[in-house]
Amino acid sequence: MRALVLGDGAPRVDRRPRPEAVRGETRVRVLLAGVCATDLALAQGYMGFKGVPGHEFVGLALDGPLEGRRVVGEINAGCGTCGCCRAGDPRHCESRSVLGILGRDGAFAEELRLPHGNLVEVPDGVDDDAATFTEPLAAALALLDCLGDARPERALVVGDGRLGLLCAWALADVGINVDLLGRHPERGAWAGERVRHMSRPLDDRPPPRRYPLVVEACGRTDAVARALAWTAPRGTLVLKTTGAEPVLLDLAPLVVDEIRLVGSRCGRFEPALAALAQGRLDPRALIEGRYPLEQAPLALEHAARGGVLKILVDITP
Amino acid sequence: MRALVLGDGAPRVDRRPRPEAVRGETRVRVLLAGVCATDLALAQGYMGFKGVPGHEFVGLALDGPLEGRRVVGEINAGCGTCGCCRAGDPRHCESRSVLGILGRDGAFAEELRLPHGNLVEVPDGVDDDAATFTEPLAAALALLDCLGDARPERALVVGDGRLGLLCAWALADVGINVDLLGRHPERGAWAGERVRHMSRPLDDRPPPRRYPLVVEACGRTDAVARALAWTAPRGTLVLKTTGAEPVLLDLAPLVVDEIRLVGSRCGRFEPALAALAQGRLDPRALIEGRYPLEQAPLALEHAARGGVLKILVDITP
Ligand SMILES: [Zn+2]
Ligand SMILES: [Zn+2]
Ligand SMILES: [Zn+2]
Ligand SMILES: [Zn+2]
Repeated sequence: MRALVLGDGAPRVDRRPRPEAVRGETRVRVLLAGVCATDLALAQGYMGFKGVPGHEFVGLALDGPLEGRRVVGEINAGCGTCGCCRAGDPRHCESRSVLGILGRDGAFAEELRLPHGNLVEVPDGVDDDAATFTEPLAAALALLDCLGDARPERALVVGDGRLGLLCAWALADVGINVDLLGRHPERGAWAGERVRHMSRPLDDRPPPRRYPLVVEACGRTDAVARALAWTAPRGTLVLKTTGAEPVLLDLAPLVVDEIRLVGSRCGRFEPALAALAQGRLDPRALIEGRYPLEQAPLALEHAARGGVLKILVDITP
Repeated sequence: MRALVLGDGAPRVDRRPRPEAVRGETRVRVLLAGVCATDLALAQGYMGFKGVPGHEFVGLALDGPLEGRRVVGEINAGCGTCGCCRAGDPRHCESRSVLGILGRDGAFAEELRLPHGNLVEVPDGVDDDAATFTEPLAAALALLDCLGDARPERALVVGDGRLGLLCAWALADVGINVDLLGRHPERGAWAGERVRHMSRPLDDRPPPRRYPLVVEACGRTDAVARALAWTAPRGTLVLKTTGAEPVLLDLAPLVVDEIRLVGSRCGRFEPALAALAQGRLDPRALIEGRYPLEQAPLALEHAARGGVLKILVDITP
């Protein structure tokens, strides 16, 4: 089959063997896959990944319990036997592989393979374009796990890119008013009435106000320290992006103001698919480009340009 | 009156005017005061503090509602009118002064002044030596606020100094088994049966296990990054010390492992006094030195030596 391959040199489309049948896993014919910031980081050498990237996809199950159905898939594949896995949550299994990120080839290919339990059927009302957003939307909704029962009246989301917009929507969806900080004032409207766009830059000046909840979703190395300055005493700063480089951080304000800094990564697919099926958001407006698999390297390049929202790779035969 | 004064040059004992009567505040005759790491940092220039340091004390109320009683005092004095203050918690009031730390002279003096509401009467069964530990014990117990309802089976406390021992005790007191990491194996026993001392150094080797709860209480600049490596996925790392310098931190593991990094500072006095009154701990074993006010600069020097536990300044007339 054809696949986008990362290895030595530039990303290229190449021939790879199809995934073989493995007990407990389903083979999936990929239909559509989305480019994420992590893919761009992997292409730059992050985590030393070699193989097929891609972890946002919709496809057709070729075998297994969901054979013939349209599916999306949770990307962490656990060992199945450790404490995390037995508790039904392989996201933190220490021996996990992660689709297109760690030890498992991903979705920029004609076929991929995931454990049966990772796959979830896509409801009929959710088309392929929208279904491709299930994974990033689940990651955005995972934000809510960081809040516990607390629902602040207003939150700040730093970054109005792909991830920032989904995070702003996720907070607004549970009734939180959101100030969205970024360079694209025209984007705020997509996330709904509760989201107010602020084009004020994330600079060194002291912030005019501090928020009980701040979400860092812009991925800039210097953003964490600045986002911390916007966080109110006893507030929560959620980090949704993994910078490749260490950051120099003054932790004294974190202690003095008793701030919680929380990392947040993957979320569950069911609430994301429910939101899509109920039409609570329409992510298709975020699609800015579409490339056939043969041109996947161009898709990466396009996604890497400043200010670009979602780029898809179309793999329908 | 005489007081220890920080300003230009070395700490010195000098004459200062007694605190004047101020509406809503009580004047306190100080009996005994403890030296804390923060005092040592202030003496080194931290926060640019000039004035009388000292925030761990027991004294006699000279006026106000508790006149004639033996008292300890919460160190954050709020404005009384903001949201924090009206909610009864001036610890995060933006216009607060902090006894001996920020905008308010402290306890290494014959007299100090605090708002009436900050003072708490010391039960008869708690002697002056023990009462002086109320503030650091309250700070250690504040740890428990970071846990919510979660009570992990085992936790790691990094640092077996003054603060680390109190933190280990506080966790053990609610039934959590504690591994205590530090250089003084003889100290573990003080904190009780649930505390197991580990003399393994906090080094660069990967930790043999990771804990759902880690408490950084050693104050070393490089300790945060290492403590992070000991924290299990979805675990909590509580920072109890404020390093003066920014630290270089790789935040990717925090996001990938969805770790919570929580700053924790001051706690409420009532639970600390209750623990002392009930004899659940005896902090007097931690006292290693005692100096009269005239020799307070020597007390600071003694406290700054490596591995020293609690040093007191005796101010009884
Ligand atoms: Zn992604
Ligand atoms: Zn596992
Ligand atoms: Zn202190
Ligand atoms: Zn106030």
